[in-house]
Amino acid sequence: MQLYFSPLACSAATRICLYEAGAEAAFIEVDSKTKRTHDGNNYLEVHPLGLVPALRTDDGDVLTENASILQYLAETLPQAGLAPADSRGRVRLRQWLSFIGTELHKATFAPLLDASANEGAKSYALEKGAGRLSYLEKHLAGREFLLDRFSVADAYLVTVLNWHVATPIDLSKWPALLAYFARLQDRPSVAKAFLEERKLYGAELERRKART
Amino acid sequence: MQLYFSPLACSAATRICLYEAGAEAAFIEVDSKTKRTHDGNNYLEVHPLGLVPALRTDDGDVLTENASILQYLAETLPQAGLAPADSRGRVRLRQWLSFIGTELHKATFAPLLDASANEGAKSYALEKGAGRLSYLEKHLAGREFLLDRFSVADAYLVTVLNWHVATPIDLSKWPALLAYFARLQDRPSVAKAFLEERKLYGAELERRKART
Repeated sequence: MQLYFSPLACSAATRICLYEAGAEAAFIEVDSKTKRTHDGNNYLEVHPLGLVPALRTDDGDVLTENASILQYLAETLPQAGLAPADSRGRVRLRQWLSFIGTELHKATFAPLLDASANEGAKSYALEKGAGRLSYLEKHLAGREFLLDRFSVADAYLVTVLNWHVATPIDLSKWPALLAYFARLQDRPSVAKAFLEERKLYGAELERRKART
Repeated sequence: MQLYFSPLACSAATRICLYEAGAEAAFIEVDSKTKRTHDGNNYLEVHPLGLVPALRTDDGDVLTENASILQYLAETLPQAGLAPADSRGRVRLRQWLSFIGTELHKATFAPLLDASANEGAKSYALEKGAGRLSYLEKHLAGREFLLDRFSVADAYLVTVLNWHVATPIDLSKWPALLAYFARLQDRPSVAKAFLEERKLYGAELERRKART
């Protein structure tokens, strides 16, 4: 498998899941600004939207969209237990993947993280985001994970929550969410992925600075 | 099954799939402004985010999130063939459900349809939306459906594309998309669902006018 990723982007969720499973993969870094891969190719030829992650499977298929890639991984690496095995659990997993992808990632965090987004887009995202985080807070109060045990949805959620540092979102308003984020960050797979990607992100910022 | 819906909202995709399958369900209308159901209850007690669809299963579970509900329906009504039976096809189905939910529904159409969204949020959505629609245009050129045959993803896509009439998005810029939309609208399940929900939407607008 080959994972196209940008440091600390939502592709980090896939890295976390690969570490959880102890699975091997080649990691190909994509510069999120230039859309060039670090091995010198045009990422737009891999995925025309230019978004990470993309996962090239051992069959050569290129998969896109985080929710789809994460479920693919869970099914391909069943021994890691990254998704519920029962149908009711799978329904709930998809529900959380959809909520994180639509309400949190795309509608709340994406405009706040996008340097090209106008102030109106950012204030709209911030205002709407509070209700979504409160909904999540209620679910997480008294729970360790989104479902009964760690799943690909937690890998996605901790990756998204990690972005709060680059936004005006103050997680301390949601204590269960803050505790969840702290707890998940300490999980070995997450800690390893974040440590590695923070270094790579720092290097990317240095390269950008050098270019300007 | 009970489907909580608002006329022409993304819950219409579930109605289309129920019609495709010839399945019975109770439809409970939710006023998207007041969050009251037409049977006199507070919809926020069903789903605290106040978003439709929600589906109450025959077991009494309340499911939310369109992508999750649509996959649940496809699995519960397998004779309708609303989702691919093979694993590679299911990966592609989830990829399109995720793309429609994140890139089109939440990031492009939702701010354009939201009367409370500011102009900056709308112009950002419109500007970003063009690239996403072009990506879809390339996929649909020469294809009848998103996958090899009609699936729950088409039910979702035609529902989302139908919103263009209430936005500045001009579908004629994307001829394959426009042709797809015209073709899908003529499909009996879609035509029936849209006809019924357009009437209900008209009645909702009349009630709103009477309240002000």
